[in-house]
Amino acid sequence: MEKDGSNLIPLSSDFTERRDRICIFGTGDFGRSLGIKMLQRGFSVTFGSRNSSSVSLLPEGAEVLSHAEAAQKSSIIFLAVHREHYSFLTELIEVLEGKIVVDVSNNLKINQYSESNAEYLTQILPRAKVVKAFNTVSAWALQSGTLDASRQVFVCANDSKAKHMVMDIIRAVGLIPQDQGSLLAAKEIENYPLQLFPMWRLPIYICAGLTILVFLYCILTDVVYTAVTEVKDISFRIAISIPNKVFPIVSLMLLALVYLPGVFAAIIQLYLGTKYSRFPDWLDRWMLCRKQLGLVALSYAFLHAIYTLVIPIRYYARHRTSSSIIAQIKNNDTSPFVNMSAWRTDSYIALGILGFFFYFLLGITSLPSVSNTVNWREFRFVQSKLGYLTLVLCTGHALIFGWNKFLNVSRYRWYLPPAYTLSLVVPCIVLVLKLILITPCVDKRITQIRQGWEKSSKMAKETL
Amino acid sequence: MEKDGSNLIPLSSDFTERRDRICIFGTGDFGRSLGIKMLQRGFSVTFGSRNSSSVSLLPEGAEVLSHAEAAQKSSIIFLAVHREHYSFLTELIEVLEGKIVVDVSNNLKINQYSESNAEYLTQILPRAKVVKAFNTVSAWALQSGTLDASRQVFVCANDSKAKHMVMDIIRAVGLIPQDQGSLLAAKEIENYPLQLFPMWRLPIYICAGLTILVFLYCILTDVVYTAVTEVKDISFRIAISIPNKVFPIVSLMLLALVYLPGVFAAIIQLYLGTKYSRFPDWLDRWMLCRKQLGLVALSYAFLHAIYTLVIPIRYYARHRTSSSIIAQIKNNDTSPFVNMSAWRTDSYIALGILGFFFYFLLGITSLPSVSNTVNWREFRFVQSKLGYLTLVLCTGHALIFGWNKFLNVSRYRWYLPPAYTLSLVVPCIVLVLKLILITPCVDKRITQIRQGWEKSSKMAKETL
Amino acid sequence: MEKDGSNLIPLSSDFTERRDRICIFGTGDFGRSLGIKMLQRGFSVTFGSRNSSSVSLLPEGAEVLSHAEAAQKSSIIFLAVHREHYSFLTELIEVLEGKIVVDVSNNLKINQYSESNAEYLTQILPRAKVVKAFNTVSAWALQSGTLDASRQVFVCANDSKAKHMVMDIIRAVGLIPQDQGSLLAAKEIENYPLQLFPMWRLPIYICAGLTILVFLYCILTDVVYTAVTEVKDISFRIAISIPNKVFPIVSLMLLALVYLPGVFAAIIQLYLGTKYSRFPDWLDRWMLCRKQLGLVALSYAFLHAIYTLVIPIRYYARHRTSSSIIAQIKNNDTSPFVNMSAWRTDSYIALGILGFFFYFLLGITSLPSVSNTVNWREFRFVQSKLGYLTLVLCTGHALIFGWNKFLNVSRYRWYLPPAYTLSLVVPCIVLVLKLILITPCVDKRITQIRQGWEKSSKMAKETL
Repeated sequence: MEKDGSNLIPLSSDFTERRDRICIFGTGDFGRSLGIKMLQRGFSVTFGSRNSSSVSLLPEGAEVLSHAEAAQKSSIIFLAVHREHYSFLTELIEVLEGKIVVDVSNNLKINQYSESNAEYLTQILPRAKVVKAFNTVSAWALQSGTLDASRQVFVCANDSKAKHMVMDIIRAVGLIPQDQGSLLAAKEIENYPLQLFPMWRLPIYICAGLTILVFLYCILTDVVYTAVTEVKDISFRIAISIPNKVFPIVSLMLLALVYLPGVFAAIIQLYLGTKYSRFPDWLDRWMLCRKQLGLVALSYAFLHAIYTLVIPIRYYARHRTSSSIIAQIKNNDTSPFVNMSAWRTDSYIALGILGFFFYFLLGITSLPSVSNTVNWREFRFVQSKLGYLTLVLCTGHALIFGWNKFLNVSRYRWYLPPAYTLSLVVPCIVLVLKLILITPCVDKRITQIRQGWEKSSKMAKETL
Repeated sequence: MEKDGSNLIPLSSDFTERRDRICIFGTGDFGRSLGIKMLQRGFSVTFGSRNSSSVSLLPEGAEVLSHAEAAQKSSIIFLAVHREHYSFLTELIEVLEGKIVVDVSNNLKINQYSESNAEYLTQILPRAKVVKAFNTVSAWALQSGTLDASRQVFVCANDSKAKHMVMDIIRAVGLIPQDQGSLLAAKEIENYPLQLFPMWRLPIYICAGLTILVFLYCILTDVVYTAVTEVKDISFRIAISIPNKVFPIVSLMLLALVYLPGVFAAIIQLYLGTKYSRFPDWLDRWMLCRKQLGLVALSYAFLHAIYTLVIPIRYYARHRTSSSIIAQIKNNDTSPFVNMSAWRTDSYIALGILGFFFYFLLGITSLPSVSNTVNWREFRFVQSKLGYLTLVLCTGHALIFGWNKFLNVSRYRWYLPPAYTLSLVVPCIVLVLKLILITPCVDKRITQIRQGWEKSSKMAKETL
Repeated sequence: MEKDGSNLIPLSSDFTERRDRICIFGTGDFGRSLGIKMLQRGFSVTFGSRNSSSVSLLPEGAEVLSHAEAAQKSSIIFLAVHREHYSFLTELIEVLEGKIVVDVSNNLKINQYSESNAEYLTQILPRAKVVKAFNTVSAWALQSGTLDASRQVFVCANDSKAKHMVMDIIRAVGLIPQDQGSLLAAKEIENYPLQLFPMWRLPIYICAGLTILVFLYCILTDVVYTAVTEVKDISFRIAISIPNKVFPIVSLMLLALVYLPGVFAAIIQLYLGTKYSRFPDWLDRWMLCRKQLGLVALSYAFLHAIYTLVIPIRYYARHRTSSSIIAQIKNNDTSPFVNMSAWRTDSYIALGILGFFFYFLLGITSLPSVSNTVNWREFRFVQSKLGYLTLVLCTGHALIFGWNKFLNVSRYRWYLPPAYTLSLVVPCIVLVLKLILITPCVDKRITQIRQGWEKSSKMAKETL
């Protein structure tokens, strides 16, 4: 995993080839870091600066001139200046005519300005070849050079030749250019480094909320109930036993929430009789974060699996085993082997394992490099067929685990149902609705709608 | 994982830039979906249509004209029409001269026609610039926009400029263009969306067949045998105990089948004395699906691991433990600690864990993004060295697990050998053959052959 | 996973289109394999050779001519000749003028020559268009066609048109071209196939060294000590019990070694008051292999997890359980349930599981396809926040596991501390130093430095 195969890190930094002279406007942190990197890679570097006060901080070997002088010396100018100060460029329109100007700027907020910095630059310098690049790389990363994540450099430009020249420079400094097309992509590229897992927020908030609720519910019906009614301290259950209830319950809820919006969408399409109308915003947003919801649910399932597997090595479990055996001996009352119990426990364990296995498979297919290798037909097959199989197996696992406990009044502590029943509500709703949707008559109509059929006005009376 | 790093999804759909006018021929489902998407992204869209009856279904904001009129308004024409109807284009040869015509068509079957639709189109419109694109995206996916798998759009064309213009449009609608070179690639691209895991079929059939056979064998020698000879119902073993015999047995068989064709290939090369003759077809096909065979085997090994780890929490196992302890107490006959047993069980467990670990490593290196980062030398190292190490460890695991049971006649129920012995036949054959192949004298000859040496006629008498 | 999505393997080899004639200089193994592949894919192939003695070995359908004659017939010449023999090309300067010459050569050692073979070729043939390609593919791989790893073909050239023509040929033979820019990249590309996990060596050596030391330490204080002092053979512990001490100890040490260099770097920057001075070489090298160190540590943590989960199914553990129960019965002395013990064991198990879980997440984000999808900000968040969380959880796991054992003199066998204490030294140092570094006053200064602030001469007196 040490190198990204599609691009090689130049291991030798002893480049000695004569290269184009590079000009950098701006002597701030990024400008300096870029200059040092360029010098290390054998480029000649000229800094363009308003005053020479900051000269002492510049890397050795670099030249410092006025903006106009510096620009004349090179055909490629890196603009490491905040957008707010672009105005000084108006004096350089002629000097920069026909030259490549690389905009490396970032903003402080997403969508801060109506147009991207690079497009704004084309308005100031209409006859320069503006290229957007390097903004996704941090100065620290350029400097230390020990990084993975930011080796990719997104590049876009309207001038194809200019873009390819910049891409070659990017390769020469050991980074990986990613052609993003024309300057229309500049806005995206400028927003990119400001994001912090935007698609993961909603799923993680939902998951955290459910986790806290279920956790408190379990504490109440388990630890607090026992403390109050039996005056017994079982608070140690907070470490493993309670989490091992919370994880599977929340995981199953989240898994069902992955498939619920698809069911809603089908119902809306059936009702409206067309696929060409937009879904409500909340549904759109929900559908867009299904993958993240599913992966959060998978991580909880993973935790549930490990928390379950460690049970036999826990002091509590080992003590309970020996107590039970000692009690049997003392009372001379050995419990007989009940075939039914063996069937039931083995069944729900087996269902759980298989459910986890298919869930894991789903998780693997959501890895970018794997999902890129499947076509649309295969993706649909995996996500809908395997996904529903997983949901069925996991719901079955919970149902057989619970068995008839929900009928047993003694399980209702303070009239609250056992925690596991909470997890079954949404999955059962999803599965029942899905069952209805795949009955031949309903399914046929949905297929028609998804193939472009529309319930026009004259068919308005037709019943669904 | 929310975004494909190499390309960004335009988050804002409030594009207002003036763009080229797009023309779409065909008002079917795909044409309409494409039109809606284009309009959303700020393009002007003109539909070309034979009649205007379908106008009511078209997206708002789009213009509908005759084919010729529509084509004149735009330099890029998307052809969303089935190949069977391409004939109408003969009337438009002049109008389309020099224009970019994007063929988005798919066929119903793989290799339905001798030449690709796009190449057929170049024959009809020899002076248009034909680009193949968008056929891997479904209308539903374009419409809903909530997709992963089909964000990749394969593009090929003979005209490089036309190709790059189409690639920019693809980026503008939030998809990821993949340059596939010239129109020679069109056939592949047209076949691509019709595939459903073609490389996985043979491995899955083999695996399913073996699974059923071994499962029935285990049912027979375990559940049925006990029911007949001891009149005892142990059918609960079908849930976990039997699968936990089937999974490891089939997994080891499949793992050996991954390495068997390589051994065959070496023997054939030794026999023929050349590497330049083709292998028989069955061997070629077998070698091509080794990776898939290996991954299926790995998933069975994974299931075996979990099925084994849950043993102590099963009712059956817990009951057996307490019964055995109670029996020891009652008979006042405590079993002593046998060092040999501790060694034996710990050894086969340790071998199994290490085997699984290296197997898992092999699985990780087969992830596309990982295998792309290793060079040929590293790949060979991992696949052959680590692969054989895994096979040796897993075979050792099974051998020490079985120990001397195969010598014990009482284990032969109805004269059938214990199930685990089935799993050892192929691995042992592979390992013995491999051992012969890596003896210095044989290995030297194989190395020579693989470096291009050939046993010519004058060496025909030479013995191998 | 059967196909690399970004490129399709031509499934049909029945290409019949007329293509350019290809010329290959050199009739060695690679030249022949390339020729066979080209012929299979429908190209016409002419070999250029000094003598015709090797004609009998050439593939059917290929023509053999003298170098000059062969070169005249084609616009693309593949040079499958060792660099040592390039001198014969001096006679062909005129024939090859303006033609594309593809250098496929490799060297025997990394950085064998001062300039790359391809650049050396441009000196011999200054008016030919030199393209570097195909050197990462092995002849065996070309021949067998059953490969994954080497489907990528790195290409570089100074002439963009020539490069794209060669890239189209690469696609036509079913491989995946990777544009690496200008010929400056040739040296990297020539070194690439000679590497064997260069980044993994140091981490694996460190890990192997620590493993052996800790293993011997555990053998000494466990098996040997018991054999000597109690005259009891517990050698069976070598299979599972001892490794299950070694794995977690070494894993935690390595995990701490991942974060130690970052702490050192911060201290050096604080001391020097600038980020623009280079780190010492040993620190640079250490920082560059942090990812590999972390992954090795993760694999040990994985093994520790499985070795722990199998404990209850081991003969040794089962025997100990029943012995202890039988002893309790016989002595009529049932051990009471100790809440404290339940809390302690459950806590360290829970911390261990959570630590492993976050560690696993870190491992997943280091997969190339995942780390490519996160930006620099997200990468920093995951690696530093999640990474330290993992370190804290795992250190806590070890601390609570050890509890007060280190105070108990009876645990000091032959005056040696219990093995687990070894694992805690480095993590505790790292965590304490990190705690100091994130105190507001120190953190503020580091942030300033990393944003480009420098302690200049006039600030030299300022205390840190």
